[in-house]
Amino acid sequence: MLKFYYAAETCALASHIALEDAGAEYQAVRLDFRASDQRKPDYLAINPKGRVPTLLTDEGVLTETPAILVYVAQCFPSAALAPIANPFAFARLQSFNSYLCSTVHVAHAHRFRGSRWADDPAAIEAMRRKVPASVGECFDLIEREMLEGPWVMGETYTVCDPYLFTLAQWLEGDGVDTARLPRVVDHRRRMAERPAVKKALAQELSAS
Amino acid sequence: MLKFYYAAETCALASHIALEDAGAEYQAVRLDFRASDQRKPDYLAINPKGRVPTLLTDEGVLTETPAILVYVAQCFPSAALAPIANPFAFARLQSFNSYLCSTVHVAHAHRFRGSRWADDPAAIEAMRRKVPASVGECFDLIEREMLEGPWVMGETYTVCDPYLFTLAQWLEGDGVDTARLPRVVDHRRRMAERPAVKKALAQELSAS
Repeated sequence: MLKFYYAAETCALASHIALEDAGAEYQAVRLDFRASDQRKPDYLAINPKGRVPTLLTDEGVLTETPAILVYVAQCFPSAALAPIANPFAFARLQSFNSYLCSTVHVAHAHRFRGSRWADDPAAIEAMRRKVPASVGECFDLIEREMLEGPWVMGETYTVCDPYLFTLAQWLEGDGVDTARLPRVVDHRRRMAERPAVKKALAQELSAS
Repeated sequence: MLKFYYAAETCALASHIALEDAGAEYQAVRLDFRASDQRKPDYLAINPKGRVPTLLTDEGVLTETPAILVYVAQCFPSAALAPIANPFAFARLQSFNSYLCSTVHVAHAHRFRGSRWADDPAAIEAMRRKVPASVGECFDLIEREMLEGPWVMGETYTVCDPYLFTLAQWLEGDGVDTARLPRVVDHRRRMAERPAVKKALAQELSAS
């Protein structure tokens, strides 16, 4: 059976929702970041990056959200979570997910993880100050250019949707005024009503 | 015909090499970052992110290196650049590319692009100082855990290889002592001997 390692309020939620969307059987294993579980030897032996999510499969370990999302879609084709057989449509999905992992999540990470990129406390504080602007700019682009509606890729729900939902959870905390993002906020509201999302969130909350 | 927008000494080199590996017919269009070509209205109309690479296809525009790499692999199956039909092997490839775009390239970007994440000049300078350590840590993990050898994914060359080669071009400039990375350096040397790499690099140099 699949074994899924996550921590609450992290980008692992996207893969967690996708596993539910797919109807996958899996065991969820919660890490406590406050206890630095991700830095403990047992976990580093599974994922030497010391990050979440990690998906343990019968064939081995997988990490990185865009990879896990497409793996889940590919292993559970009846859920139709990614148009893998259509190169252009699939590339658009991949482009969206790449933007989230390489630009949007990175902008957000400068709020709590500045020490990855500088040692000086004043620099870390300066990074934190820019998060509302840098995350806001990313979401302006998503609002204006990338979110087709009703779902990210248009008429069809895909693994882009739980990924966007996950990062959109952080908007208020990142200091972004969501009034300027009506389409993103509407997407987030509709996502929150889906049974798979409710189930993944309930599982994350109940374990805390 | 495919139209490929790139700038010299950027991550677009990875897609450029993959297009050559695939034997694709394409028109290469060079942007001059010193002239801020990527911020000009004509280009922003194609790629509102103002970044490279961009691949213009008959079906529309594609951006983001991991998406373009897999698109090229999928459109030119005879070149066998990605094991798309094998979900686990494909997910490993995607995981590697995701790590490069979300962590390795991001660590490097703090050398020249600190203004994305802070406004204070002292903070930007503090980010620059940490690049040797943060990029070095990424490549230590690649050297130790991720580069299987002889190619990134093992016996078979994939689109991971031009992507790693591209980011490894920046090691010395990033202040990383490559003596500790013998496997990465050997990979880079073998990549540089491949005709597709020579052709892409020659094209980028000749246009300058």
